[in-house]
Order: sequence, then C-alpha cells, then structure tokens
Amino acid sequence: MFLKEIKSPDDLKKIPKNELPQLCDEIRSELISTVSNTGGHLASNLGVVELTVALHSVFNSPEDSVIFDVGHQSYVHKMLTGRYDQFATLRKADGLSGFMNPNESIYDPFISGHSSTSLSSGFGIAKANSMLDKEGRVICVIGDGALTGGLAYEALNNIGRSNENMIIILNDNKMSISKNVGAMAKYLSDVRTRSSYINTKRSVKIKLNKVPLIGRPLSRLIEKTKQALKNVILKQNMFEALGFYYLGPVDGHDIYKMVDVFKSAKEISNMPIVVHAVTTKGKGYDFAESSPESYHGVSSFNYEEGVQSISYGYSEAFGDAICELAEKNNKICAITAAMTDGTGLSKFAEMYPDRFFDVGIAEQHAVTFAAGLASKGMVPIFAVYSSFLQRAFDQIIHDCSIIKQHVVFCIDRAGIVGRDGATHNGLFDAAFLSEIPGVSIFAPSNYSELKEMLNVAINERDGVCAIRYPRLVEPKNAENHYNGNHYYIKNVTSSKIIVTYGNLFNLADKTDYAVCKLNELKIDDKLISELNKFDEIYFFEEGIETGGIGQILASKMLKAGYKGKYNLTAINEFVSHNEIDALLKKYMLDTDSMNRIVSEE
Amino acid sequence: MFLKEIKSPDDLKKIPKNELPQLCDEIRSELISTVSNTGGHLASNLGVVELTVALHSVFNSPEDSVIFDVGHQSYVHKMLTGRYDQFATLRKADGLSGFMNPNESIYDPFISGHSSTSLSSGFGIAKANSMLDKEGRVICVIGDGALTGGLAYEALNNIGRSNENMIIILNDNKMSISKNVGAMAKYLSDVRTRSSYINTKRSVKIKLNKVPLIGRPLSRLIEKTKQALKNVILKQNMFEALGFYYLGPVDGHDIYKMVDVFKSAKEISNMPIVVHAVTTKGKGYDFAESSPESYHGVSSFNYEEGVQSISYGYSEAFGDAICELAEKNNKICAITAAMTDGTGLSKFAEMYPDRFFDVGIAEQHAVTFAAGLASKGMVPIFAVYSSFLQRAFDQIIHDCSIIKQHVVFCIDRAGIVGRDGATHNGLFDAAFLSEIPGVSIFAPSNYSELKEMLNVAINERDGVCAIRYPRLVEPKNAENHYNGNHYYIKNVTSSKIIVTYGNLFNLADKTDYAVCKLNELKIDDKLISELNKFDEIYFFEEGIETGGIGQILASKMLKAGYKGKYNLTAINEFVSHNEIDALLKKYMLDTDSMNRIVSEE
Repeated sequence: MFLKEIKSPDDLKKIPKNELPQLCDEIRSELISTVSNTGGHLASNLGVVELTVALHSVFNSPEDSVIFDVGHQSYVHKMLTGRYDQFATLRKADGLSGFMNPNESIYDPFISGHSSTSLSSGFGIAKANSMLDKEGRVICVIGDGALTGGLAYEALNNIGRSNENMIIILNDNKMSISKNVGAMAKYLSDVRTRSSYINTKRSVKIKLNKVPLIGRPLSRLIEKTKQALKNVILKQNMFEALGFYYLGPVDGHDIYKMVDVFKSAKEISNMPIVVHAVTTKGKGYDFAESSPESYHGVSSFNYEEGVQSISYGYSEAFGDAICELAEKNNKICAITAAMTDGTGLSKFAEMYPDRFFDVGIAEQHAVTFAAGLASKGMVPIFAVYSSFLQRAFDQIIHDCSIIKQHVVFCIDRAGIVGRDGATHNGLFDAAFLSEIPGVSIFAPSNYSELKEMLNVAINERDGVCAIRYPRLVEPKNAENHYNGNHYYIKNVTSSKIIVTYGNLFNLADKTDYAVCKLNELKIDDKLISELNKFDEIYFFEEGIETGGIGQILASKMLKAGYKGKYNLTAINEFVSHNEIDALLKKYMLDTDSMNRIVSEE
Repeated sequence: MFLKEIKSPDDLKKIPKNELPQLCDEIRSELISTVSNTGGHLASNLGVVELTVALHSVFNSPEDSVIFDVGHQSYVHKMLTGRYDQFATLRKADGLSGFMNPNESIYDPFISGHSSTSLSSGFGIAKANSMLDKEGRVICVIGDGALTGGLAYEALNNIGRSNENMIIILNDNKMSISKNVGAMAKYLSDVRTRSSYINTKRSVKIKLNKVPLIGRPLSRLIEKTKQALKNVILKQNMFEALGFYYLGPVDGHDIYKMVDVFKSAKEISNMPIVVHAVTTKGKGYDFAESSPESYHGVSSFNYEEGVQSISYGYSEAFGDAICELAEKNNKICAITAAMTDGTGLSKFAEMYPDRFFDVGIAEQHAVTFAAGLASKGMVPIFAVYSSFLQRAFDQIIHDCSIIKQHVVFCIDRAGIVGRDGATHNGLFDAAFLSEIPGVSIFAPSNYSELKEMLNVAINERDGVCAIRYPRLVEPKNAENHYNGNHYYIKNVTSSKIIVTYGNLFNLADKTDYAVCKLNELKIDDKLISELNKFDEIYFFEEGIETGGIGQILASKMLKAGYKGKYNLTAINEFVSHNEIDALLKKYMLDTDSMNRIVSEE
C-alpha cells in the first residue's frame, strides 16, 4: 500500500509514475470507508483524486501554496500532506477539519469553508510573494460551481491583468452542489464540446500564414479571414479574453494527462494560467457517481447500501410548508443559491418549476433579485444557510430594507451546526439582522411553529421577514407555543426566569424554572414589563453575545429601570467542529448547565 | 427652451428629432448650473445626456422599468421624468435624492445608491413581469466600473441564460470612479478598438458560405477555417458567449445613433440584449472632461473657475498618515475599491505604486485579497466607506477573523454623511464589527488621534483592526486624548456622565457635564467600574441603536449590577439626505440636545 507511506508530497514524488493509478485506487477506498463512517463531503473528493495526486506530484507544497476552494474538496490533499494517519478523525472533536485550515497544517495556506474565496486569497499570497521576493507559485483549485460566485469573478478581473505566477485549476464537474445553472455553465459546456479547440487553433494559425493568395476575390476574402482570425480567434476563449493562458480541457481522471498538463503549466511563468480539468463528481463509487447531489455532504452510511433516505428535519419541514402555502398563493417564489436539496426545496422545485430559481452560488444576487421580484408584488422566499447569508448583508440593507421590500428569508443552519465547524456555524444572523431597521425575525422551536410563522411572514407581514431554524430534528411531543404572540411565558410563579429562543427553548423547557420563549426576536414594552416582575433573568443564547438578543434585552431592561439580576450565557468565539450536543454543553447552553447556572447564581 | 416643457417622457417624444441636440445642450447647462450650486455627481451625468434622452425617446417609462445603476447617473432621467421643476432641490432637505428612489417617483422602479445592483433588481422585475403577464421591458444602465462588481456578474450569469426582455446598456466611459482596472476593462478596450467587428462578423459569415472550394489542400484548409469560424467567431464576444444579443459599440454622444440602436434593441424580443455605448465622463464641460475624477462627487463650486482644491478632512489626514507610516514599514500595502481619491489614497498611490492596489468596485475581493496578503506577513490597509464595507461582512468574518489575519480597515464616511442620504450613511459599522470576535475598533475624534491609532493598529496590534472616522473636518484646537488608553474621562466630579465616541465627543466636549470618550469601542471591567461611580449615564451614538455600542455597554452595566439611570440616544431608522448638522440636531445628537437631555432627565 502506497498511501500509508506518504508523509509529505516528497514521498509522493518517489512513487513510480506507473503506480499512480494504484495510489488513486487506494485513496478512493480510503475516502469511501472513512466518510461512510465520519460523514462529510464524499462526491466532490472522489472527483479530485487524480487531480490532487497529479498536483502534488508536480508542484512543491508548501513552498507552492495550494488552495482548494470551499475546502470540502481538500480531503485527498490532506491525505497526501502528512495527515493520512489522522484521517479517521475527520470532522470529529479535536480531529481534522472538513475544510482547509492553516492552524491544522502548513500545507493549508489559507482557510476555505465558504465558496469562491480561493482566487482572492491566492492572489493576495501571490502578490505578497512577489513583493517579498519569495519563490513559490499559487495554485487554486476551484469548481465550476464556485465560479458562479461574484467574488471569484472580482478576483479573475484582478488576476487576469497581472503577471503573477498563479495557476487556477478549474475543476469542471458540470455542476455545483445542485445542478449548475447559468450562462457560465452553458459556456463551459460549449468549451468542453469543442475539445479539440486548442490544437485546431494552433494549426489554423500556423497554416493561415502559409496560405498562398490565389485569385483576387478569394484572396481578399482570405486576407479578411486571416485578419478576423488573428484578431478574434486568439481572444476567443473567455479566460484568454480576460488575460489568462488557457490549457484544456483535459480529462481530470487521466492521471498521466493531468501530470503532463501541470508540467506544461509549470513551464509558463509571469502569467496567470487556467487549467481546465473535466471531472466527474463521485467518480469510482457507483452510488455517488449516479447521484452526486446525495453524496455532496453526507452523514455516516453503509458502504454496501449507500446513503439511505435523509432524515426529516427542519429543512424538510420548511420544504413541505412552503409547498403548501405556494398552492394557495401563486405569488410565492422560492430562491436558492445552489442548495436546493440542503435547504429542503427539492419538492418545491418539482411542483413549481416556474416559481423556483436556483441562482448558483450567488447569495448577493439572490437577495437583490428577490427584492426586484418583491417590488412588483411577488413574494420571494430565499432559503439559505445562516453563515452564507452573511454574504448578502449589504443587499438586505440596501436593496430590501431601505425601501421596505417584502422579502422572506428562511434561514437554515441557524446556531451551532456541529461537524462543519467554525466557517459554517450560524452564530451571527440574529445579531446582524436585528441591527437593520424594520426586519422581523422569527425563531420557531418546532415544525408546527415554523409552518405557522412562515404563514404569518408571507401572508400577514410586510417588509423584510426572517425565520431562523437549526440543523436539527424537532424534539418528540413538541408543542406549538406561537399562536401569533411574539413571546410565550411558562410557569410565571417562579422568581427566576430563563429567557431564550429557538431550539434552546426545548432544552430550557426541561428545567425547573419559569421560561420566556421569544417567538419573535422583538423586545417591546409589553415584554419588558412582564420580565420586570422577575427578580432574576437568565438569558441563554445560541449565538454571538456581542450585539445579540440577550444584550439588546439587557440594555432595554436597564433603560426601563430594572433592578434585578441579569445573567447572560452566549457565545464569544468561533466554534470548532464537534457534535452539536457536546458543543451546547461546552458553551453551557444545555439543560444541565441551565439548571446549574440558574440555581447556583 | 424644450426642457421646461417636459413633464413626462411623453412630452419628450413630441420633440422633433432634429431638435434633440438642442435639448441635450439645455440639459448640460442645467446640470452644470445646478450641481455647481448643490454639489453632487457631475461628470457621470454629463456623460449620459444623449443616452438618457435617446432612452426616453424610444422606450416607455414607467411601463418599461428603467434603472440607472449606482443612481448617481440618474439626474438627466430625473429631469425628463417630471422632476425638472424640483431639480434645484437636489440633495437638499426634503428635496430630490441624488440617487434613484421609488418613494420619489414612479419612474424610479428601484432604489440604487450602491454599485452593481441594477442587473439583479432588474432581473427580478423582468421575471415578475413574465410571471404576472405584464408588458414592459427592463432597461438597466450600468457603467463599466459597476461591471467590476461581483454582484453584476452573478446577475449576468443568470440573465444570460434566460429569455427575458432585458436590455442592458453598458455605459462604457472607460473608467469607474477611479481609473478603471482589471481584465474586464482591458477586454472592453479591445472590443472598442475593433469597432467594425459587428459588420465584419456578419459579412465573413455570409461570404464563407459562398466560398468555392478550389484545389484539395486549400479546400481542406478553408473548410477547416470555416468550421473554426463558425464555432468560434460567433461566440467571440464575451457577452454573446454569456447568451446576450450584443449591439455596439456605439458612440454614446451621437443622439441619432443612440436612438437608432435603441430602436433596434426594441425590435428584438425574448432575449437579453447588451447595448454597448461609449461615452465620455464630464462631456461638454471642459474642466470635468479633462479631470473627470475631480468631478465625480463635488461640493458646490464656481462655474467659471471649476472645482478648486478639496478641503482637507479626515480622508486626507488618513492619506498623509499612511504615507508616513509606509515610509518606515515596507510591509504596508493600501487597497481601495475604486475610491483612490475619495478615501485619500492618491498620494500613497503616487508614492508607493507597487504597494497600492485599486481592485475595482469589488469590496468582497478587496477584503479576501487583503487577508491573503496578511497571511504572508504584509500589512494590508483597506480604505473604504462604511456603507460599502457592508458588502464584505462575510469576508471579514470568514477570511480575516476566524484565522486572525492582521488586516486594517480604515473606514471613512462613518456615521451620518449628509447629502448622499440613506444608502450612504455609515450607521452600521460599529455594530456589525463589534459582533465579530477579535476585532479592535478605534474611533478617533481628530486627525492626531487618527494618526496615532493607525500607528497602533499597524505596528502594535494583531488580528483585525478597524479605524472609523467621519466625512468631516476636525474641529479647531482639537486635542489628542488617546495616548494608548481605550477611553478618556473628563471632569469626573459630576454625578452625570455622557459617554460617546468619534466626532460626537467634540460636541459632548462643549457640554457642562463629565464626558467619557471611547477611543476604542471596547467595554471592559475597568471601564465598567469607572462608570459605575456615576449616578446617571447618557450614551450618545451616531449609529444604529440596536446592537450598537450604547446597548453593549448597557448590557454589561446591568450584568455588573449597575443600579443608576441609563439613557441611550442613538438612531433607529434609515436617515434621509440633509446637512450633517441638521441631521445631528434631528436625532438629538448635537450639543444643545445633549445639554437638554442630560439636564431634563
């Protein structure tokens, strides 16, 4: 077995070229067996096995900086850069992160958890190398999905006109997480189908210079054609038009061709390069290859049987609720940023294709597009993960809120998300949305509340509304405590009260104390005078403390002259990957901690 | 005079075609005379006179939705859509906004103050029109500068593959606000220089189909050439490659050609169209034409003399300070998102061109690029307006803060900005930056403090630092109260204390009360125990109340058991355009209001 012996890319370089296919097989087996156990991103990593092996065979990491965009395609890179021994700890507490992280290894030059960042961070590294007279190329591996993000384009626009030693490997697997959409996808498909393009271009150019000019009419035409070709064909490819040297398309699963194309790329200096590799998501594992979406991010599964049905959680409850509402209200549209499955919108997409929009990994556009729809009376619902909505903060302010557009944000993965870790936790949405004037924020604690709040947000409210829910399954015997009231108080006879919202209510509900549940994250005089009756208030918040709801309430209690005790337990740092339960315990947000804090203090 | 008679685009359509140049002259005169009085955006509007006249001559607003990206090029549109009478009130209290605003007119279908939004909002309107079976095209006018924003690209990627009736008018004035940068700018320049391209393409295509095949070697070559041309040349233009019907380039100052090209565009249906108009910023006013940057956003000026030197404010003080620091520290780099002049970086750009980066209107990329530079030991300074930094909220979290990159944000236009109004006020930065773990935020009250804080942020701190300062000139006889301490208290003998930061300190300093000035927006135990000595605390904040520093302090005072009175005066809504002084008074943030509030309560 070769894989075991590879402690660094240097070891990889010692393996005879003809044995590389064998190594790739070993990596695939390891990927499938580990991820079937730990959960994680499978299909994307199966797609980059040869690409990554070839990359580390040719380039010299860490002197050369290698960045995998989104990071969820970096598992093979981790195995080949001294982390094979720890691979079984993937996404576990104190184990390897599921993304790139400089704190984990010198082979990870930059963090990458969100999409479309690698070209910008890589360009920063390349420029710094130049300014510091350091050797070393920058190699960014970016999927065609990530290329739909505006950030990637902003970077291309800067890189293309530079003369930095940057190599962009376009991992073109013909889809982002959901099936890829948009003009760029269509364009790449055009390029792929003209696969002999590079060679043709070169030979046409050479031959044209040798064409004898026969007869006047024809000669004029050919002369014109020559000019047109010289002016036009040399700029034909979009990447070339933007200033890149373009190599490809290449079969990303042909290890020999990949090694060759990287060697060619290495020969070119002082010019940014695009290597266009065509790959297949899920390659080598039949289940994943035939249904790559189901194998994008998976929980643990049985290798022989493949991933079975997804468990029913808040995402699916949202999906069902929105379908039901859309039946009665034909103004409802749903928007996703390349997360149809993840956000629970698959059913809606099927039932209402004309009112469903997958905009690609383009959260900014999703929000401004939604505002445009709303301005003409449609009711757009943007279903998005909390940490990705951070991308559209300005668009929520500028395009939605100033002019009070009725846009509904359905915020999935709010709060702690578990094994995806620091880049993916939804710690900030309650705080950053609260800042924006006129935004209504709902926090259901179960599916029934989610459904009712969605109905209220769509049919009874105006302006910007947000409904935030966790990456969880509702508790058994969940009771609906909403009924249109912005808060619910249980057991008012106690002198101490716990205040919380969302899933934490389900944990607070098991304590012995009075509980105030915020159905809507709105602090008004009625709530304040109600809470004023208690001697001690204990706020628990599964979100950032500074600027969060616990602080907002505290400030209003103080302003209102509250003289009692106010205790706030919330999160003050980025939260690493681990099980959600363990993390709630760590941050003293579980039932036991609540009981202890309220009783001790 | 024609202009006076135009109450709506219908009136414009009655003007004989041969009189349109006369109308354009009238509009130019009006632009120059009004803006020289009110201040505002001059060069960009002088550049779109013919374009806008032609547009409203051909299309039917408001049935057709016309959106001017960034909105600061919408003055001519305002004159032609019933707002000529009010034009003298531009940017004044209760007068016309300097941007598009649906609350102002039915001819403004969407708000536009920030850049690169029009294609997304326009696409939303177009899709809504389709779904609602409404007639009406969507026409977006977007500058080549705005096209460097990732949001615009995300939209192009969606629009290009649709079959909506959208017309994108690319107002190519060969620069954004600063001189345009990047690969797209280079590309557009290539397209402009091949101005006969459209015709050539058509004739080549037609003639090729008629070429007789003479002799075997030549015929094979020609056959191959034909194929190459058919495959390649037809996809040559980038907009065409992305699915648009492309018309242009057209001389944007030839009113007849502009009318013709819009008529052609109108004939094409069920396909998105790009009309590429080449214009000159500042056209028709010599001063502005020869120095368009100086006439981008101007204060009032003398028509005969042109804009004289810019007054020295915080932006220039920052510019001087950073140049001085960069001399001693060659790791310092400065980044701007197309705002070299506005942020005070012109001198730096001249003195240190190798360490200066204008990335285009691309705030997201600016931040992640900065983080990349920082990861290799450079010290990047991103100088940016507060409201534009909202665009990069996720990048500050994901690319800078999680891995604690030493990136310094110099945030200009923090607080109320005056006549630019709701879209441009910097109300949110203190709140949204406070949320992010590990961010140090400095708030100087004069140039000397700004300089010292910049030095501390660069040379003594690690991690993310931000220095925020207003669109103002420092007060006379300003004293430096920083000296490395995160707060400064004056007159501790009083029982009432005003707490504030930034420019408001200068106003609080004139009251009769004790004042605590936060040099750094950091609430620690030392500050809390200091403030605990006072019976009454009055916090004044020129920023959003919810999640702001006043609330954060209040929550910590309550947690610390403070039993005194706590009064918070801050802003709870979007702030319309007016003079800064008048707005401070309106929101009770001026010296008189402070005196009144503290004495009365």
